[in-house]
Formats: sequence, structure tokens, C-alpha cells
Amino acid sequence: MKKKSFTTLLLLAVLFSISAQQSRLRDHGIEIGVLKPGPLNAITDVPGVQVGHSTLKKGDSVRTGVTAILPHSSNIFQQKVPAAIYLGNGFGKLAGYSQVKELGNLETPIVLTNTLGVATAVNALVGYTLFLPGNETVRSVNAVVGETNDGYLNDIRGRHVTEKDVNNAIENAEGGQVEEGNVGAGTGTICFGFKGGIGTSSRVLPKKSGGYTVGVLAQTNFGGMLKVAGVDVGKQMGHYSDNFKYATDGSCMMIVLTDAPLDSRNLERLAKRAMLGLARTGGIASNGSGDYVIAVSTAEECRIPYKNDSALQTVPTLRNSAMTPLFLATIEATEEAILNSLFAAETMTGRNGHKIEALPKKKVLEMLKAAGKIR
Amino acid sequence: MKKKSFTTLLLLAVLFSISAQQSRLRDHGIEIGVLKPGPLNAITDVPGVQVGHSTLKKGDSVRTGVTAILPHSSNIFQQKVPAAIYLGNGFGKLAGYSQVKELGNLETPIVLTNTLGVATAVNALVGYTLFLPGNETVRSVNAVVGETNDGYLNDIRGRHVTEKDVNNAIENAEGGQVEEGNVGAGTGTICFGFKGGIGTSSRVLPKKSGGYTVGVLAQTNFGGMLKVAGVDVGKQMGHYSDNFKYATDGSCMMIVLTDAPLDSRNLERLAKRAMLGLARTGGIASNGSGDYVIAVSTAEECRIPYKNDSALQTVPTLRNSAMTPLFLATIEATEEAILNSLFAAETMTGRNGHKIEALPKKKVLEMLKAAGKIR
Amino acid sequence: MKKKSFTTLLLLAVLFSISAQQSRLRDHGIEIGVLKPGPLNAITDVPGVQVGHSTLKKGDSVRTGVTAILPHSSNIFQQKVPAAIYLGNGFGKLAGYSQVKELGNLETPIVLTNTLGVATAVNALVGYTLFLPGNETVRSVNAVVGETNDGYLNDIRGRHVTEKDVNNAIENAEGGQVEEGNVGAGTGTICFGFKGGIGTSSRVLPKKSGGYTVGVLAQTNFGGMLKVAGVDVGKQMGHYSDNFKYATDGSCMMIVLTDAPLDSRNLERLAKRAMLGLARTGGIASNGSGDYVIAVSTAEECRIPYKNDSALQTVPTLRNSAMTPLFLATIEATEEAILNSLFAAETMTGRNGHKIEALPKKKVLEMLKAAGKIR
Amino acid sequence: MKKKSFTTLLLLAVLFSISAQQSRLRDHGIEIGVLKPGPLNAITDVPGVQVGHSTLKKGDSVRTGVTAILPHSSNIFQQKVPAAIYLGNGFGKLAGYSQVKELGNLETPIVLTNTLGVATAVNALVGYTLFLPGNETVRSVNAVVGETNDGYLNDIRGRHVTEKDVNNAIENAEGGQVEEGNVGAGTGTICFGFKGGIGTSSRVLPKKSGGYTVGVLAQTNFGGMLKVAGVDVGKQMGHYSDNFKYATDGSCMMIVLTDAPLDSRNLERLAKRAMLGLARTGGIASNGSGDYVIAVSTAEECRIPYKNDSALQTVPTLRNSAMTPLFLATIEATEEAILNSLFAAETMTGRNGHKIEALPKKKVLEMLKAAGKIR
Repeated sequence: MKKKSFTTLLLLAVLFSISAQQSRLRDHGIEIGVLKPGPLNAITDVPGVQVGHSTLKKGDSVRTGVTAILPHSSNIFQQKVPAAIYLGNGFGKLAGYSQVKELGNLETPIVLTNTLGVATAVNALVGYTLFLPGNETVRSVNAVVGETNDGYLNDIRGRHVTEKDVNNAIENAEGGQVEEGNVGAGTGTICFGFKGGIGTSSRVLPKKSGGYTVGVLAQTNFGGMLKVAGVDVGKQMGHYSDNFKYATDGSCMMIVLTDAPLDSRNLERLAKRAMLGLARTGGIASNGSGDYVIAVSTAEECRIPYKNDSALQTVPTLRNSAMTPLFLATIEATEEAILNSLFAAETMTGRNGHKIEALPKKKVLEMLKAAGKIR
Repeated sequence: MKKKSFTTLLLLAVLFSISAQQSRLRDHGIEIGVLKPGPLNAITDVPGVQVGHSTLKKGDSVRTGVTAILPHSSNIFQQKVPAAIYLGNGFGKLAGYSQVKELGNLETPIVLTNTLGVATAVNALVGYTLFLPGNETVRSVNAVVGETNDGYLNDIRGRHVTEKDVNNAIENAEGGQVEEGNVGAGTGTICFGFKGGIGTSSRVLPKKSGGYTVGVLAQTNFGGMLKVAGVDVGKQMGHYSDNFKYATDGSCMMIVLTDAPLDSRNLERLAKRAMLGLARTGGIASNGSGDYVIAVSTAEECRIPYKNDSALQTVPTLRNSAMTPLFLATIEATEEAILNSLFAAETMTGRNGHKIEALPKKKVLEMLKAAGKIR
Repeated sequence: MKKKSFTTLLLLAVLFSISAQQSRLRDHGIEIGVLKPGPLNAITDVPGVQVGHSTLKKGDSVRTGVTAILPHSSNIFQQKVPAAIYLGNGFGKLAGYSQVKELGNLETPIVLTNTLGVATAVNALVGYTLFLPGNETVRSVNAVVGETNDGYLNDIRGRHVTEKDVNNAIENAEGGQVEEGNVGAGTGTICFGFKGGIGTSSRVLPKKSGGYTVGVLAQTNFGGMLKVAGVDVGKQMGHYSDNFKYATDGSCMMIVLTDAPLDSRNLERLAKRAMLGLARTGGIASNGSGDYVIAVSTAEECRIPYKNDSALQTVPTLRNSAMTPLFLATIEATEEAILNSLFAAETMTGRNGHKIEALPKKKVLEMLKAAGKIR
Repeated sequence: MKKKSFTTLLLLAVLFSISAQQSRLRDHGIEIGVLKPGPLNAITDVPGVQVGHSTLKKGDSVRTGVTAILPHSSNIFQQKVPAAIYLGNGFGKLAGYSQVKELGNLETPIVLTNTLGVATAVNALVGYTLFLPGNETVRSVNAVVGETNDGYLNDIRGRHVTEKDVNNAIENAEGGQVEEGNVGAGTGTICFGFKGGIGTSSRVLPKKSGGYTVGVLAQTNFGGMLKVAGVDVGKQMGHYSDNFKYATDGSCMMIVLTDAPLDSRNLERLAKRAMLGLARTGGIASNGSGDYVIAVSTAEECRIPYKNDSALQTVPTLRNSAMTPLFLATIEATEEAILNSLFAAETMTGRNGHKIEALPKKKVLEMLKAAGKIR
């Protein structure tokens, strides 16, 4: 992962948002929910978080890639983080579930890629972890890898993702602005019948609720009846049907990071709420959907050292009764991250000449205007 | 449960809907989703299903009651039905979870009441079951009882629900139109800061998707930022706040019945989707919410006889790949059932003079008109 | 619950064990496992824990009762304890599962009784909790009640357990020696075809493993092929058959308390291990068995105050890597608790003249001698 | 997989058992439980089941391998089988959990290997499946791969398992006698401080219980206090200690196949019982143990065709009340499979000169004789 000063990152973020970021939901005056986003409105608003992409676009039919999310920039195996995974709908090939469930922690970066690339990504993460300084005697690694199926646009059977691509995504990881749309693991995905991709968003709680940040990154590849800020744009465009043409199977990977100090039980509850955000975009978690949410607390005081002299660990964690604001933040950030992926993604042609159109933003914005969502 | 001919019921339903039913969502031209409701737009559209209420409104402070849902009108203990319960957020006192989870079936009517009335309802259901003809030697009964907490309007500590009230609800149960709003287990509930209650809705799948009916009944007592048909009415009315005043804890019980032949695994998946419907109304499943979904298949061919000569049971069940339309139906019917509860409920004053206003429908309808949701 | 000084209790225990305790497994020189029991070899070795029984033996056919286990002697609702419940086999009517699962804590004493008495016990626990000093405004109580079915010896359909019986069990609760056998919730139970009942045991970890105590109490009412200290006594006595006559359905409630500071995730893992102890006695968790394990940490520093100024709670908890000794302690104490219930229980005649013989201890001891288990 | 006639297989089995099979538990007159094993006392007693090994023993430090279990010899992706996975203790890297949980079926052979070889095995299984005749358009494969950690004897960090090794194991798969001990995925494993490996056993139910066969195969690499047929041989040999030296972490993969027609819910219940069998061998499911059970019904009438004209599938399944005999069969076969792995495994020296002794069978048999387990 690259290292930059946080100030530089913020500056870059601001500059970048002036030029390229016309495609985000909020650039059009559309607000989701009632909580405020962080400065970047991205998962990287959670301090220390880094995101990297490897985008594979080659020839006529390779349209895939890898996205890596690092909860912190130290050796994650040595400094594990509390984590939970929620199975929204488990038709998917996510690696690493059972150990996270049992032990309540994460010990590798989170990697997203395509369905048939999971094992290669696991191998890369294992190699990455075995050879990190300090891990010389490690003989067991629980790699967490999620996926969606980009096989309509991408020659998925060709299995083009390599371990090097995964390593590149990890090495590219940095804080600051997160690239969205047709990038990394979102390169070849489809969402609500339009071009999907990577999207991100964040929320910052009011001080009196702890001032914590919740960041979400989504890899969107699922179906349903698209709603933008509650407006039934899918229905209005006739972009649905009762033969369920657009409720196509697919998947959505949602990564929820927060600096709130949470144990794995409350992280699982948090993860569950991301599905409520997905529901607000019109997602229905269809039979063939692999909808997974990985939730992680990045709070430094909650890290779990691999080696420790004491059998006891004394950590502050949030009480159950403080969870509600974090639930709302997760729902709102997930809804917006998914919509951002649609706003950023561009029309793409891939395997067998298959073409998927970008969301017709002009038309959508008109509908939103008509509905009073934009002044 | 009362017996009436189905024709009479339909006739009554039609007549009833002309007079009293101005309060339902669809009476105002508001449609939720894309699938069609059944003739009654109620859980009783599922053939054989019966619903009964006991409403307790006494003096200044008793504002509670009981609602019973019967999947069929025979002896349910002798003819069990496939079932599943999903824990949306388990801060609640639901009885019967573990046996339904283990055995995949339901053997009593489903009863809803208030939080501190659950045990009394279990005792009533046990008594009801022990003394049904044919159950003379039964010594083990798994009663399923759900609840929400009506303690703001109701003197819940007084524990006013009696076994007789529960028996009455079961005896009152009938097909046809279902009373909504301040009735039965919804008598004293609060939803999004307004008066909640009982609501119901249904969807019928197109023939090519099997033509099955999905019916939902909800007992609404939860918080969040109300959305009606996607319109942020809670936000527009300032009826939310970042100190989470209206994201008050509470609970939502959702009962999903269908005549689709489903095993308990797919019923659990169906149950999970009801939470996506709740999400679309602005629900956030706050920390203190007891959000439970009970899903049951009423298909006659799937009934599980208590006594059977054969160790094998040969039943048709829907394949995984046929589930998506049922998922969508559940989401839509849950969203509409919750909104119907709000449209039907009326302003109520109860314990300690506490007063909860009904949803200001006129204002809400104006907002919906402005958003183009009503012509 | 009664209050006695700990010294008095120890003294009483010692005296008591000289006279009445010839019936415990260890009195015969039989040791289970490799860890040492606590001074009482009982769940009450866990500091602060109290146990109380109400035994109902009336006329020809009332053979039932109530057992209450208190993790500490303060107001448990105000000072909740970390807890988890594991469903070994969920064919049972345990109350309180979902809230313990969601919130990770217990807020009432644990009560055990018969299958059809659960709701009455819940009502009693709710009443008990509502009227404890300090709980004047409480409107929501999650009562945890377990059960086994004593309907062969007891007129279970008569539902003879009253709220007063439950209150008595709670009031009777005290530290020190725990009565075993045909007592409290074990009055009418059957285990491996012999008279079952209440049994208890404990283990103390070596100092270097933390020195923690694990105490188990079991209500034994299940089937299988009895093994005592690994010796196949059931098989040798022909007390099994391949028509599964003695693998009769039934249930086993296991309560695991420890002063080790554990969060609910690790308590659930601990609870799971009790089933391994049950397996060592020859239990098979048959289809109709309701096998539940409730695990609680009584560590004072882990209590969860109902009201708290801070959203954060800073508690020490054991790391995953320190769990193995506690797992072993749970397995050993569960095995011995179950066997103690069989050694303490006496032949009983009940409903319809049904008679269940006590374990023929003389014969069993001979078998153990022959197998070299007793010198 | 190789094809042989069943008669030839039986003949080979008989011959083989005369010469090489002196090492199985039953050859020494030791019987586990009360049910009868099948003719081979192996997982391959379940009709149609095939097992194959790739054993990697190279130089000083490669001591690992692959074992493949095929529920049937047709295209498993096209003819899926009902399946469930139970997480006994989830400290492991098993691939494929969530999709089996969600959909209730298995679509690849089951492969076992070492911890760091899982991803390579997944890649091999994906390749194997993509290129099976009939799967030309398949773009999504849920590979199920289990593991234990052989890193003490094997240079696990060298990651020596290749896709070819996995393919070989699948191609080697055949019915008939199953090789046990230091073979395939058991080449480098350690169990109770002795050399572990692969073990198998089976049980056949009496006709009146359906006559079904349950077969178990175990990859044993875990710790605890060894019991052989209930005799505390670990304790007697001082081969344990209260500093938990021999309760070493590790893992146990258990594969349970049956021709009983079961749905995934009852398969999960069956899977759970394998842990009770493990408990009887002295296993404690220590913190670092990855104890997983994969249960599959091979009943032809229960297969789930990938493509089907009908949305309905009508299959016979066993009722809950018929499960108990299958539970007992699973417990007994698991206990014996684990013990068979220890009886078959031989002393091995591997990485860094590490040496693990075989179970001292002579000494163990003397202990069993002293305990009256052998006449």
C-alpha cells in the first residue's frame, strides 16, 4: 500500500472532486438520509483505511479485476481487527466465513474479485501474509475474499485474474478518494440491468452519538427494481417486468468499516443493516444473489495482537444501547454507495459483443426533479 | 374460529371495502411495487387462512390486545405446517423459536400480543392444544407467540391480557377482510412516532411464476424515518432528528403466509425478505427492536401429519430457482402491510394521558402528490 | 435467595458430604477426566452462585418441580451478565433464546421446570423482576426458562407448577451444597431408562490457566447407551437395543457458569462443549431431545449495568487462545454432573403407577471394578 | 474416477482385509457401539461412493496430500446432492460453506487437503467442473474443500499441493476398500499426539429402521485425551497434562454420507452428531481446532438436477421422527473412523526432523484387555 500524508490526500481529494466527481450522487444535489457524509464521502473517511484496484480490461472479452480494502496499514495478521460477516443471501463463493464467525476477527486485507477468481485471490493473500516481515513462522492464514459474477461481460471461464493482479491491488491501496464505477472488482458487473461497479459512501455520527465514522464500499452486480432516493426509476422506465427479467441474479458485496469500537457480535448486527440499505435501492436479494456484508472495526484500541503475554484483553466496546445511530449510518451509506456505483459506471461492451448501458443519468435526474428530490 | 362460506366472505369483503376501507393505502391510488395484490389485499387471500383479534381497551390505561393467525382451520398440532422464523433483530420475547428452527414446522396458531403477555398467551395456546379433540395424549406443545411493547400507551406492567382474551382471538378467527389499525395486538402500538397497529397486504404471482399467493400481516411498533412509497415523509415533516428521537426502539412482528409449497429452508429465506420490505418503509431495526418474521407454507400437500405410518414423506417443494418471485412478493406485501397499519390506525390516548397522533394522512397525501406518486 | 457466610457454607458442605453424599460418583473413587473439581464439586463452587429447588411430589401423579440458578445475588436485571445459549437439539420450549443471542446477556435467574410449565415460570420471573426494588419502571423482561418433559411419571397435562413454586425455588436459592437427584426440576425425569434428575459438578483450572472455576448443573431426561466413566454399562446390561427402546426421546438442560471473564461469543463456544460431555455419557441427542446449554460468565468485572452514563464499557475478556482449558473443564464437569444425577436419583413411582428404577449402582460399580476404573 | 464392478470390489476388499487390514480396530476384536458396520466398514459402503487419494511424500519435508470423496460417479454439478455443513469449531479455512448453507446442496466432489492448499484445490475443482462434458456454459461453481494443518511434519509454507495432485485424487477415486492412515490428506497429520491420518467406518441400520447405510471418513489432526472404546488410554499413558500439552490445536474433517433420503435440514442435524462421536474419542474441539462436518445424502431420488423443466421437485424425505437411528449410526461410525485412522497410521519423520510416533498399539491393546474390552 502506498503511503501519503493525510493532508495531501485531502487536498487531492478536493481537487479531484472538482473535476472528475461530477458523477457522484451528491454532485447532483441528491441527499440520501439524514446523517452527514465524511469529507470524502468514501470508505476511506474511516481513518487509516486504504483501497486499491487492479482493473483488467484486455481485448474483447476480459472485463474483470480486483479490489483490495485494508482496514489499517500495519501487518493485519499480527494486529487482527474485530470482524463479522453476514450472509444476506449465501449464493456465493466468499472465502473465510467460518473462521471470522468463530474467532470474531479478520487477519488479512479484504479482497474482492470475480466468482472464479476467489481461489487465486486466496492464494495471493496467503502468499502476501506468509511473506510479510514478522510472519516467518506463520502456518495458517484465513484469507477473506468476496466476489460477484461478471460472466456476462467478462470471459469468466478464462480465469484471467492472477495472483499478481491481487498483489497489485493490495500494493495500489491508498487512502483518499476512491475510484468508482468500472474499476477493480467492479469492472464487469451489472446492476439493475445497467452497468454496475464499485461505489462508496460514508457517514459521520453527531458528536453526542460518539462522532464515529462508518464507511461502506460496494461491488454491485445485482437486480431488482431500481429506486434512486426512493423514486421508482426502474418502474418508470419500464425497466422491470413481472417475468422478472431485471430481477436477474447476481450479487452484492458490501464492506462496512467503522472506527467505532465494536466487538464481533455488534459488528454482525451492523453488517445485517447493510441489507436494509440495499433494500432501499430496490434490491431484492434474489435466489441467485450472493449478498454478503463484511463489517470490521478499525478502532486501534480494539486490535487483537497475534502474540500476547496476557490471556486477558481489556478493550472498550460500545454498549448495545449505543448501536442505533451506527445502524442508521450503515443503512444510509450502503444505499448511497450502491447508487454511486451506478452513477460512476460507464457503458461497456465485452464478451461476445455483450453491451451494458450506463444508467441514463439525464433521464434519472429528470425523474428525480419531477419527484421533487432535486430543486 | 368461525366458519363462513368463501363466497359470503368475498361479498362481505367487497361491501366492507366500499364503506370502511377508505383508509387503506390503495384507496388513495398509491401502489407499492409491481405485483398485484389478491382480492382482499390481505393475509387471508392465502386460502384457508383465518385471523382473529381480541381488543382490550378499558379505562384510561388498558390499550392492548391479542391477534391470532391460523394457517388452516384443522387441528394444527395433528396437521403441522412447514415453517421458519427469522430473527431480524432479536430484542424480543418471541416464544417457540428453537423448535421451529430444529423441526421446520409449526404446531399451533400464531399469536401476537404485548411483551409481558407472551407467557399467558403460551399457556392459553398450550391449553387450547391439549384439549382439541384428538390431542388427548399430547404432552408437549410448542406454542409460537410474538409480541411488541405497547407500554407507552398501555399499562403493560398491569399484565391485563388473560388466557380468555387469547382464546377469544382464536375463536374470533375467520377468513375474509382483516380489521387493521388499533385492533388486537396492535391496539397500543406506535410506529415512526405515529399510531401504529395491525396492517396486512398480499401479492399474487403471475401464472407463469406459479400463481401463488403471499400474504403478510404486521404488528407495527417500530421507529426510523418514515417513507411512504419511497417518499421521505418523515424527513419532510421534520419527524426525525439526528438525536434519534423518532428512531425509538420498538418492534415489528411480521407474519408471512403462502400457499406455495416450500420447505423450512426456503421459508427462512422468504422470512428474511420481509426485513427488506420493512427497510423500504424507513425502518432501521434499531437496537431495541424485536423484529421477527414467521413464515409458513399453507400448501395442503406439505402438511406434516403428527402420526404417520411411514417414515418417509413425499412432498412437492419449489426448487431454489423458483424463489425469486416469492421474495419480491414478500417484500412488497410487507412494505404495504406496514403502511396499511399506519393508514388505518387512529389517534389514541392511554396510560398517564399519553397521546399518540395518527399519521396525518392529508399532509402525507399532499407530499405524495407533490412527488408525483398520486395523480 | 438466602444469605449465608461462605465459611459456614463450606463447613456445612464438608459435614453434609460426610453423611449424605455417599451417592456421588467420586465417593466411589470414580474420577472423570483430569482436572480437579472445586471444594463442593458443584455449580456453586463458582463464587456467588446460588441454586434453589421447589419439589412437587403430591398424591399418585404429581412428580415435578422447579430449579432456579442465580448467577449472582444482586438484581440481575440491573446487573446483567454475559450469556449465550447453544441449541444442541432444539426440540424443546426454552424461553428467552433470541434476546440472549442478540444482546449477549442474561437479565433474570435461570429457571428449569417441566415442558408445560415454562410459561408459568416465565410469568413468575417477569413478576419477580418487575417488583424487585429498582425495577419500578421496567416494562420489558427477557425471562430464561428451560425444561424437560417429565410426562411419564408426572401428570404433566395437569400443569401443576404454579408461579408460587417458581418464586419459592428462587427464594430457596443459596450457595453451598446442591441437592441432587429427584429434586426440583429433576423430580420426575428419566435418563438412559433409569431415574434421572438434577446433577452438578465443577472444575477448577490450574493457576497457570487462570485458576477459573467452571460449574455445571444438569437436568437429565434423555436417552442413549449409558457409559459410566467410559464403561459401556448400558450395553453390558442389555439396556439398549437396536430398536432404540432406550434411546428414548427426552431432553437435557445444561447450565454452565464460570467466573472466567468471557464475552458472549466465547460463552457460546463454551456452551457447545457441554454437548461433548453429554456425548461421553452415551447421550445421542435423539430427534425428540431438547438439549440446550446456557452459559454465563459471573465475573464481576463483566457485568453489564442496565443504566450507564457511558456508551462505552471497558471490560477484560479472555482471548480466544485461552479458551481450551475452559472447554475441557466444561466437558468434564458436564459428564460428571449427568452421572451424578443418576447416582443421586432414587426409584420413583408416579402417574398411572409408572415406575422407574434407580440406576443399579451396585451392579454398575462392579462393572467399573471389572474394567479397572475402581481399585 | 475409476470404474470397477461391485463384485470385484467386494472380492478385492475381502482379500485385502486378510492381508493388510490387521490394523483396523475391529481386527482386534474391539467393537464400537451397537450397530453393525457395512461389508467394508468404510464410507464406500454407501452405494456409489468413491474415494481417491494423492499422497505427497517427497524428500525430508513434504508430507501432505489430497483426498477426494465423490458422492456419486455422475456429473455432480448437473446432479447435485442434498448437503449440509456443520461448524463444530470454525477455526479453519473450509471453502464452500455459505452456498451449501443457503441452497442446501453440493455441486462438486468433496476435497480434503492441508490448510494452505485449499485455494489450489478450489481452483482444481473449478477447472474440473468447468470442463466436464455438459458443463460448457457453467460460469459459477461452489467448490467444497476442507483441510487440516499438517505444518509440524510437512513444509506447509512451501505449498506443495498442485492442481494436478487434486485432479489425481479425483481420478483415483473408486469404490471398495479405502486406504487409511498416512495417506492422502492424512499423510502428515497428528492426532492426540500420535500419528493421525485418514480413517473410515460405516453403520447399517436394521431393516425396521430403514436399512440405510451411514459412512464416515475422517481426516484426524486434533488433540484431547485419547479414549479407545471408552478406555482412557491417553490418561493411563500420561499422555496428557494439565498444561494442555496434548490438547494441541489441530482440526478434524468429518465427511458423513448416507443413502437415507434426507433434506439439508436433517443433514445438518446429522452432521452435528459427528461431533458427539469425536467427543467419545476424547476430542475436545480446542480453540485452534477446525472441526467441520459435511453431510450428504446420496439417495438417487433426492438428487437435484441443475436444469429442470418444472419449478417443483417431488422427493421422498425421512420424517424428523425417523432420524434417531441415523444419529446413532453417525456417532458410532465417526468414533470408529477416528480410531481407525490412529490404528492405521505409522510413525513418520518429516520437516526439520520432526518425528511423530504411531499409536503404540500393543500397549493400547493391553490396556483394553485389562479393561475387559477385549476377551
